[in-house]
Amino acid sequence: MGRPAIETARPQQDDDDPTVASVGEFAVIGRAVEGRRQPPTTLLGPGDDAAVVRTPDGRAAVSADMLVEHRHFRLDWSTPEQVGRKAVAQNGADIAAMGGRPSAFLVSLGCPADTPLAVAAGISDGLGSAAEALGAGVVGGDLVQADQIVVSVTVLGDLEGRDPVLRSGAREGDVVAVAGAIGRSAAGLALLLADVGSSAPGAAELIDAHRVPSPPYEQGVAAAIAGASAMTDVSDGLVADLGHIAAASGVRIRIERSRIEPAPALLEAARDLDRDPWEWILAGGEDHALAATFPPGTDVPDGWSVIGEVVSGTAGGGGSVLVDGRPWAASGGWQSFDAG
Amino acid sequence: MGRPAIETARPQQDDDDPTVASVGEFAVIGRAVEGRRQPPTTLLGPGDDAAVVRTPDGRAAVSADMLVEHRHFRLDWSTPEQVGRKAVAQNGADIAAMGGRPSAFLVSLGCPADTPLAVAAGISDGLGSAAEALGAGVVGGDLVQADQIVVSVTVLGDLEGRDPVLRSGAREGDVVAVAGAIGRSAAGLALLLADVGSSAPGAAELIDAHRVPSPPYEQGVAAAIAGASAMTDVSDGLVADLGHIAAASGVRIRIERSRIEPAPALLEAARDLDRDPWEWILAGGEDHALAATFPPGTDVPDGWSVIGEVVSGTAGGGGSVLVDGRPWAASGGWQSFDAG
Repeated sequence: MGRPAIETARPQQDDDDPTVASVGEFAVIGRAVEGRRQPPTTLLGPGDDAAVVRTPDGRAAVSADMLVEHRHFRLDWSTPEQVGRKAVAQNGADIAAMGGRPSAFLVSLGCPADTPLAVAAGISDGLGSAAEALGAGVVGGDLVQADQIVVSVTVLGDLEGRDPVLRSGAREGDVVAVAGAIGRSAAGLALLLADVGSSAPGAAELIDAHRVPSPPYEQGVAAAIAGASAMTDVSDGLVADLGHIAAASGVRIRIERSRIEPAPALLEAARDLDRDPWEWILAGGEDHALAATFPPGTDVPDGWSVIGEVVSGTAGGGGSVLVDGRPWAASGGWQSFDAG
Repeated sequence: MGRPAIETARPQQDDDDPTVASVGEFAVIGRAVEGRRQPPTTLLGPGDDAAVVRTPDGRAAVSADMLVEHRHFRLDWSTPEQVGRKAVAQNGADIAAMGGRPSAFLVSLGCPADTPLAVAAGISDGLGSAAEALGAGVVGGDLVQADQIVVSVTVLGDLEGRDPVLRSGAREGDVVAVAGAIGRSAAGLALLLADVGSSAPGAAELIDAHRVPSPPYEQGVAAAIAGASAMTDVSDGLVADLGHIAAASGVRIRIERSRIEPAPALLEAARDLDRDPWEWILAGGEDHALAATFPPGTDVPDGWSVIGEVVSGTAGGGGSVLVDGRPWAASGGWQSFDAG
């Protein structure tokens, strides 16, 4: 933390340390593959023209995300292994948000020729161990030269015979609930940007949450089984992502701040940085918590907190998500591109 | 063709032309999605946290490839639409090489904020139309800001109940055969590098083959049905890719140049550029033809040409692929990374 946050800062590297180019593509891939356990759903693992994965109910849920160095991660803030684990969390949460379980990942890595082997190997170790912890395999991918590090992940998931939980199923009268931590990743990012590091008590856990989010995977399955009418993961920010459900469902959503209890570490960090913790809770992305709606009378599963309800009407000028009865006017969710 | 091959050359752009950043992520994705037909195998298309794809036999063949601007394509040599079509061919060939049919593609695009909308839209149009021609859907992906254009594609394929055709099944006595054009992409690249353009007769078709390879998709299925013992696509070069089969199968492969008839355009281009056409045929990558082995006595399907046979032994010092009885000493296949 102590050193200046230069965009190009990297862990120090001796001239003799191996790079991706010095050991070659096949050695890097070989190192990423060897010793990794494949789950029983992997019928054919890496090494041929394609892998073959079991899809027991005759369907595959699929999603893809791309992480770019300096934009989605920084190697002076995160270890390569954390970058790999974050990529799995981000993609796995998309499957959880459909009510499924991640079963296989494909990972394409672009990086400069002088990228230390330890960086490429660290990213693939993080991916591999995080996938393994989910009972999923890393079954394929690509490794190519690029000007900056780009990690592109595709995930396949198993819906286990259930209907996918779409964003479009929310109906007037449904309750709105969340599972998992919200605002922690944004608070951790703010701490990193302020360069106060883990000196503030409680800050370390927020910074860890930014480096590697912990999606509540099991809660996605539990919500689907309980009959959730709509679900998404909180990647762009709570209000923005509830807005996606509202827009897809043609409804409005009201949430109450009094029903959300900010974590003590979040309040502490907000005090230390003189920030409004609700900015992080309502607009902070990348937590990969889950947000869902349930029909009235549903026995909302343990681990979910009801924070509001679905009401009639569509966006109009006022926005489709009301916080304490009012449109919430803040900077809004994550933007993929800088203003042009 | 006439202008100098400057790495950063791009089609001219007015300041007023829309860019990816000026129209925003969601508009670019919306434009890529609208009007695209999804095949019946796409149960849920783009727009939710994940897509859902049918996998009728309870398995999915999956593969991924990443294309990087200036490394795998140049926008002063190819239109954006051609880049998209090439990405589909490259990935689709991996499924054909297993004996399957491509059913769905996921595409993550990284690009600078000032990338013309026409470039991003052209790439996605090329991807979409090429996928549609294969009866496959583009079912998901991502769009993020990056320093250079990166196209990352994952393909899902249907094995239609058949066993996948691996690289490891070649046995002594099998015949070796190829389907599709070989050496044309490398010849087209040589013509582009020599900047002679399409002035030489026949050159245009070679340059087109470099811009958009045409894998013989149906021949992959036909080979699997006929009982091919091993198969791969020719992406790194014929000798290099047969070497992958030989290594995976623990055998050697002998091919004879007399059994390969170079296309007239190839011979003409070699004459014009004072090059050896066998360099292109034996070491040229990116054609995405198919190479397979068949047990002795197999009725090799129409469209396949027998060029050699599988013999016993392993690589040793002499290499695992013999051309006219001798190890073929040339520059070798495509390298993913510049020498470090």
